[in-house]
Amino acid sequence: MTAALETTTLSRSELIWPGMCGHNSLFAGQIGDWTWDAVGRLCGTDVLRAHNAAGRPTYLSFYYYRIRGSRRFHLRSPTFGDRLRITTGLFDFGSESVLALHRITPERGADVPLDLDEFYAGDGDGLYVENFNRWVTRGTAGSNEGLVRSSPVDFRHRHLPSLPERYNPRVACHRARTELSFVDEGLGHVPDGAELHVDYEVDAARDLNGVGLLYFASYFSIVDWALLRLWRGLGRSERSFLDRIVVDQQLCYLGNADAGCVVTASVRRWRAAGDESRELFNVVLRDRGTGRVLAVCTLTVLIGDAP
Amino acid sequence: MTAALETTTLSRSELIWPGMCGHNSLFAGQIGDWTWDAVGRLCGTDVLRAHNAAGRPTYLSFYYYRIRGSRRFHLRSPTFGDRLRITTGLFDFGSESVLALHRITPERGADVPLDLDEFYAGDGDGLYVENFNRWVTRGTAGSNEGLVRSSPVDFRHRHLPSLPERYNPRVACHRARTELSFVDEGLGHVPDGAELHVDYEVDAARDLNGVGLLYFASYFSIVDWALLRLWRGLGRSERSFLDRIVVDQQLCYLGNADAGCVVTASVRRWRAAGDESRELFNVVLRDRGTGRVLAVCTLTVLIGDAP
Repeated sequence: MTAALETTTLSRSELIWPGMCGHNSLFAGQIGDWTWDAVGRLCGTDVLRAHNAAGRPTYLSFYYYRIRGSRRFHLRSPTFGDRLRITTGLFDFGSESVLALHRITPERGADVPLDLDEFYAGDGDGLYVENFNRWVTRGTAGSNEGLVRSSPVDFRHRHLPSLPERYNPRVACHRARTELSFVDEGLGHVPDGAELHVDYEVDAARDLNGVGLLYFASYFSIVDWALLRLWRGLGRSERSFLDRIVVDQQLCYLGNADAGCVVTASVRRWRAAGDESRELFNVVLRDRGTGRVLAVCTLTVLIGDAP
Repeated sequence: MTAALETTTLSRSELIWPGMCGHNSLFAGQIGDWTWDAVGRLCGTDVLRAHNAAGRPTYLSFYYYRIRGSRRFHLRSPTFGDRLRITTGLFDFGSESVLALHRITPERGADVPLDLDEFYAGDGDGLYVENFNRWVTRGTAGSNEGLVRSSPVDFRHRHLPSLPERYNPRVACHRARTELSFVDEGLGHVPDGAELHVDYEVDAARDLNGVGLLYFASYFSIVDWALLRLWRGLGRSERSFLDRIVVDQQLCYLGNADAGCVVTASVRRWRAAGDESRELFNVVLRDRGTGRVLAVCTLTVLIGDAP
């Protein structure tokens, strides 16, 4: 099926600068800005300075972030001077949430409309990104804990198309929240080796965004930081870590945290059932002090030079 | 004096997105992209994909980065939705280097040309940024050590104005390289407390840029990471660290490093002579294994609520 998205999609051509790519979370952060930009353009609200009915700042917080790619084109493929085409569609999830889908490909002639079945099959040569966001405000001034849902008064969403139920991101989020993993054990995947627990302290020097919240892209960095510890434990090199090809990453954001908060990352490797070419890693981030879960992330990584 | 910069300056208006600001080095990184963009537009070379005469990639590497601000407007002031005016001038330093000056202010009506004396006095309400860059290429494939100077064949610079000698950034760089500090002891500044030495490992998960080099903005993060350790040793809180106002930061880049390299940061606090309202911090980054100096950075921070 091809959804009729004419008035609810955007297409943009972007040149990749150093501040948008690399062995870091800059590209994930950049995609997030494109999500905000799409909501600002298509939903009638000033996404950068949104306020709720009480006049308090409200933020289009990331709740679920999935990015799929391929050996040829993945999250760390874009580099200096690449020109990319980003085709974005927004979908209606009521007044408190919104879903953005981005198909990101090397720029090549004519723009092609977003096709949902192709998007969710994810087997083209692009990056397929889902950003499911919720409007939140601080529950307590000066604290990053206890964010509460709160929409801006001028947020328009009823003109956006509905997403077919089979693609509803809430299914994956429900799994992550209840099972603390996106790994589907029903498919026969099995854990390989012990779970590693490592502590990370939320860094006042680099982890908070411009409004003092733990930046959504920092979660990618913290997950990767923890993954690197497990990676080394497997006897693998920094070089092989830099060369890793992550073809699927799902991240569900369940809590925010203040600078100085000690986060325990629990990392475990899984063998993919019937597929020697890939391995899975599941990472759970918890506030060490309270046990509060901050995030659940599962990555699918290609192994060595397997095709 | 007002330099005649008509054909060698740029002015841009930019909206601040989450990926460009915060308690991190994103804004420093964004300014660096504006430097590269200015060189690309004014010097005839594709700065994102530059090559030397041998056909090898060459990068407009950061050698000296200074940023000055004020209590009202400093490196961490810009936040979501701010609109800034960036006025940029480039200056001729031969075929291997180039200097970019950026004056960055909140957007306000008419554009005002860059005035060098105002810029170097730095007492307006803007951010005053010097980026002195050198063209380099890798000396050894796959290694970030031993970068060597190498210019792209099509780099045009002779049309750029000369900088008056009194503003030559090489003077400050020479001090940094020989004295491992920008602190001018001749002015009577005195060290306060012992030097702190802390080890930081170059992080394969977040420190390298899109071409695998230690990203220039990551040096800001590493310096801040080390500063936070000293800050805590002074009995100060995370909150006060987040609230710090850095009105001057000078950073000289003397070496690059690979992921996994252990960097020893040596941090020392200085009392500013005859000025109770500010303190200085000097940070030296060294490759622990070889002693090779990677960077020298001095920050001037306002103390408490002093005017």
